[in-house]
Amino acid sequence: MSVQAIAWAPSGAVRIIDQRALPEAEITRDLETADSVADAIKQLQVRGAPLIGIAAAMGLVAATREQRSAPRADYLARLKDFAALLKAARPTAVNLGWALDRMVRVAEGTRGEGADLWERLRAEATAIWEEDRAMCRRIGEHGLTLLADGANVLTHCNTGALATGGIGTALAPIYLAHEQGRRVHVYVDETRPLLQGARLTMWELGHAGISCTLITDAVAATLMRQAKVDVVLVGADRICANGDFANKIGTYGLAVQARHHAVPFYCAAPWSTVDASLAEGDLIPIEQRSPAEVTVIAGRRTAPEGATALNPAFDVTPARYVTGFVTDRGIVQPPFSERESQS
Amino acid sequence: MSVQAIAWAPSGAVRIIDQRALPEAEITRDLETADSVADAIKQLQVRGAPLIGIAAAMGLVAATREQRSAPRADYLARLKDFAALLKAARPTAVNLGWALDRMVRVAEGTRGEGADLWERLRAEATAIWEEDRAMCRRIGEHGLTLLADGANVLTHCNTGALATGGIGTALAPIYLAHEQGRRVHVYVDETRPLLQGARLTMWELGHAGISCTLITDAVAATLMRQAKVDVVLVGADRICANGDFANKIGTYGLAVQARHHAVPFYCAAPWSTVDASLAEGDLIPIEQRSPAEVTVIAGRRTAPEGATALNPAFDVTPARYVTGFVTDRGIVQPPFSERESQS
Repeated sequence: MSVQAIAWAPSGAVRIIDQRALPEAEITRDLETADSVADAIKQLQVRGAPLIGIAAAMGLVAATREQRSAPRADYLARLKDFAALLKAARPTAVNLGWALDRMVRVAEGTRGEGADLWERLRAEATAIWEEDRAMCRRIGEHGLTLLADGANVLTHCNTGALATGGIGTALAPIYLAHEQGRRVHVYVDETRPLLQGARLTMWELGHAGISCTLITDAVAATLMRQAKVDVVLVGADRICANGDFANKIGTYGLAVQARHHAVPFYCAAPWSTVDASLAEGDLIPIEQRSPAEVTVIAGRRTAPEGATALNPAFDVTPARYVTGFVTDRGIVQPPFSERESQS
Repeated sequence: MSVQAIAWAPSGAVRIIDQRALPEAEITRDLETADSVADAIKQLQVRGAPLIGIAAAMGLVAATREQRSAPRADYLARLKDFAALLKAARPTAVNLGWALDRMVRVAEGTRGEGADLWERLRAEATAIWEEDRAMCRRIGEHGLTLLADGANVLTHCNTGALATGGIGTALAPIYLAHEQGRRVHVYVDETRPLLQGARLTMWELGHAGISCTLITDAVAATLMRQAKVDVVLVGADRICANGDFANKIGTYGLAVQARHHAVPFYCAAPWSTVDASLAEGDLIPIEQRSPAEVTVIAGRRTAPEGATALNPAFDVTPARYVTGFVTDRGIVQPPFSERESQS
């Protein structure tokens, strides 16, 4: 059984597992306001492209509870303020803006006053979450064909239950294979600097009883040279029209290693990750995070005071390195057209 | 100016920088006895294959100061006891045994009593150190041709002044280029799990005023894709007859990236690193270190309790990935014959 990363609290707040505290502590937080949801996204208490979209949509509902008695125009104005605030929390993942735009569009298309709009949005946020859960399962079903009994998978970062509303994207086929009794073993890149692989993927796979081994990121190349990896499965934060995609820093390096060692390399993501308005990967804005994430670990300096560090959160992998895109619509190949991505 | 990792203290003790404490604190220790030198080597206060050989040779001299008035036979007996103690500190390090054997052989070949032998050994330990310093400089001079003004170098682990008696191996050309006024910028892989790049290389390059930027290991591929790396310079722990070599885990992955992006990839090491008795790299025994180095950082768990982790200390890079070997004898190509490596 996979863990559940998000829920409605009885108060109507957004209930999350604080992912910064894992694996040392399992802390649940109830986010009551747009500010607290935005902060939780910025601080990576909630992370994973699909999950931050869901959290933001649910956050709009939680945040406008007190505007339920407001007239339509006032309600919409506050809603848009909160949506803008939430949208600015993280720039790279397309799902955040997509979920917020959908919520605002639905509100605008709903008749009535604040209370009517709020009720409609609560249903819409829940629908976004449930669609994501179903989408994860479809990704898993399509990806299942890639995992023979006894398969060794290598993955990067966290693309599982802690990143989505369901069983994940790149981890979804692994959960389903395990569910069906296939033996699957997962090599998990620790994923410096924030160690989402070590902290989150190892935690949720262990929770589900799936066999997994942690490695530092630089070990992957040698495992491929030793023919210990049958397939690489990674997620995506944004996929361009031509199939270039942004994902956690380190993904591009894995793609090069996979190509060099003739290991199949798949990107698993919901169709909503496709941003067909961007022709190619170099147009994707790459979030540069604080150098302190690299120079300080667990409160201790790992580099000298004043050291310069680069800390791009993502890298871009050109489409030509990708064996296939495992989506909720099947295993597909670019180009991805505007019409398809809007559906 | 590079830092100096070792020196004679005025008391005749071995003065070291405690490398465990870097970069948080710069602690100098005077090691007065064979026990204290052995402990410093075991605990990695002193590290780097060339440097621990020098420290052990100097340690024999410091440890036998009180035996200077002893008769020859007594002096030699204590010397051999201390040499055995030091040799056991890290039994796998080649340079350690080599330096200690040389010291004992010189003592046995010297006429006179304790005082005569001690004087001779003090000169011999200083000679071992000075030979290493000269060797570093020759590596630097040969490697200097690789670094044009404005060059961007990428390096891994620590192969500098903190690993040798001089200006290092892979860092030696960088120190000399800087000394000559060439502008050089160094991208430093942090080098998980023990972070020698972040802790030691960043510290010593900063100390010397050389421009450097810390990156997590997985960033290197993207820098190469962006054409930000002109040359990769790494060290070696053992080089086989056919040119395959073992070095810090992560080196092989860099070699693949360099090949893929057409970036020159050089391995810098003293000729004594060649082990022509091994035909090829897969014969090199690879030390597997404790999984706790991966699952715990600075006393905090980064992976769940009970998580399985792989922690190979080294990987093997096949010779075909290497543009050239920068040695004290010039930039050379394999194969390396038995006769050459014995000289």
